[in-house]
Amino acid sequence: MKIAVLGAGNVGSALAARLTELGHHVTLAASDPGSPRLAAAAAASGADTGAPDEAAAAADLAVIAVPYSAIDDLLTGEVRDALAGKIVIDATNPLAPDFMSLTVGHTSSAGEQIAARLPRSRVVKAFNTVFAATLGTPVLAGTAQLLPVAGDDRDAKKAVIDLGDQLGFDAVDAGPLTNARYLEPAVELLIQLAYGQGLGANIGLHLARG
Amino acid sequence: MKIAVLGAGNVGSALAARLTELGHHVTLAASDPGSPRLAAAAAASGADTGAPDEAAAAADLAVIAVPYSAIDDLLTGEVRDALAGKIVIDATNPLAPDFMSLTVGHTSSAGEQIAARLPRSRVVKAFNTVFAATLGTPVLAGTAQLLPVAGDDRDAKKAVIDLGDQLGFDAVDAGPLTNARYLEPAVELLIQLAYGQGLGANIGLHLARG
Repeated sequence: MKIAVLGAGNVGSALAARLTELGHHVTLAASDPGSPRLAAAAAASGADTGAPDEAAAAADLAVIAVPYSAIDDLLTGEVRDALAGKIVIDATNPLAPDFMSLTVGHTSSAGEQIAARLPRSRVVKAFNTVFAATLGTPVLAGTAQLLPVAGDDRDAKKAVIDLGDQLGFDAVDAGPLTNARYLEPAVELLIQLAYGQGLGANIGLHLARG
Repeated sequence: MKIAVLGAGNVGSALAARLTELGHHVTLAASDPGSPRLAAAAAASGADTGAPDEAAAAADLAVIAVPYSAIDDLLTGEVRDALAGKIVIDATNPLAPDFMSLTVGHTSSAGEQIAARLPRSRVVKAFNTVFAATLGTPVLAGTAQLLPVAGDDRDAKKAVIDLGDQLGFDAVDAGPLTNARYLEPAVELLIQLAYGQGLGANIGLHLARG
């Protein structure tokens, strides 16, 4: 699959590396296509690099992996046009500047806010519940990490669940996109355990089926 | 320990049974001390029965296990007086009538709302993230279920973590009581998977440490 990963931070870099390993054609994009960080992430992962609108135009599927606070800078008119009709995975979390609370919740979610900005795309919430540190190690403590996938387009959601399974996660249909309201706080719980309580970032959630 | 379990529904009955097994002296309480449901739960668990204010007055620790919508009926002046100075575990979730969303979140939580009603008690949020169906089987799929414990009183929280570990859970300090804002949506995610997506109630969360 041709995949655009929009954002070359910890999440985008880790996803690009795994997706490239699996044989996907990945283009890593950042607002500044000449940034050293983007070049380093691309070199480490074997991904191509590009500008967000070009990467989005060429892709079958795009992943939004910028900080949630940067989505309005990312989703220019050109990028929104390029993403029309496509599957867009929203991997963001609406974290406060200190990461220790959420800026959106309960009556909305980052996923819904992004879908409102991309009414012509098929937005699926996924990969936001997994720490960047463990995106490359989907199996933690002997069991695949839970990857809840929420969205309103059945085919798009199915494609993302399949991609999650291919990556090695326990990808599970988590219902409509409004359920991003529960996926995003679940990450904040993990953040509180990792950083607030000192467990560190090498943790993740499993779904146990008794 | 002398434990009052306030509420004889699925959660209260399951907790009373486990706590009694472990040798605690449990009093199950319901607003109607003569209710057949309470009698049946007590008979099944070996717990005593009583009225909420009497059970609370006699207890070292109390668990609130009524529906969140019933807390104002439960927390009468007599019960609030009886709970003064005591450890109170809030096991509730602010579920909408159809269970498929939360009535409180993001800027507050059931935990904080209950603590506001019990300013003289030491309120700890715990046991709300575990389905009643699996409260009696803390080890699911070979691993202890995660039991996040949030609260502002260090000694009270430590006592609840110890109790959770004694019950067989992976009890983890989840920070201040405000983090109930993340514990409660985590349950709603489980509910969506169990009932919205048909996985059933015999599921739970593990915390994987990589």
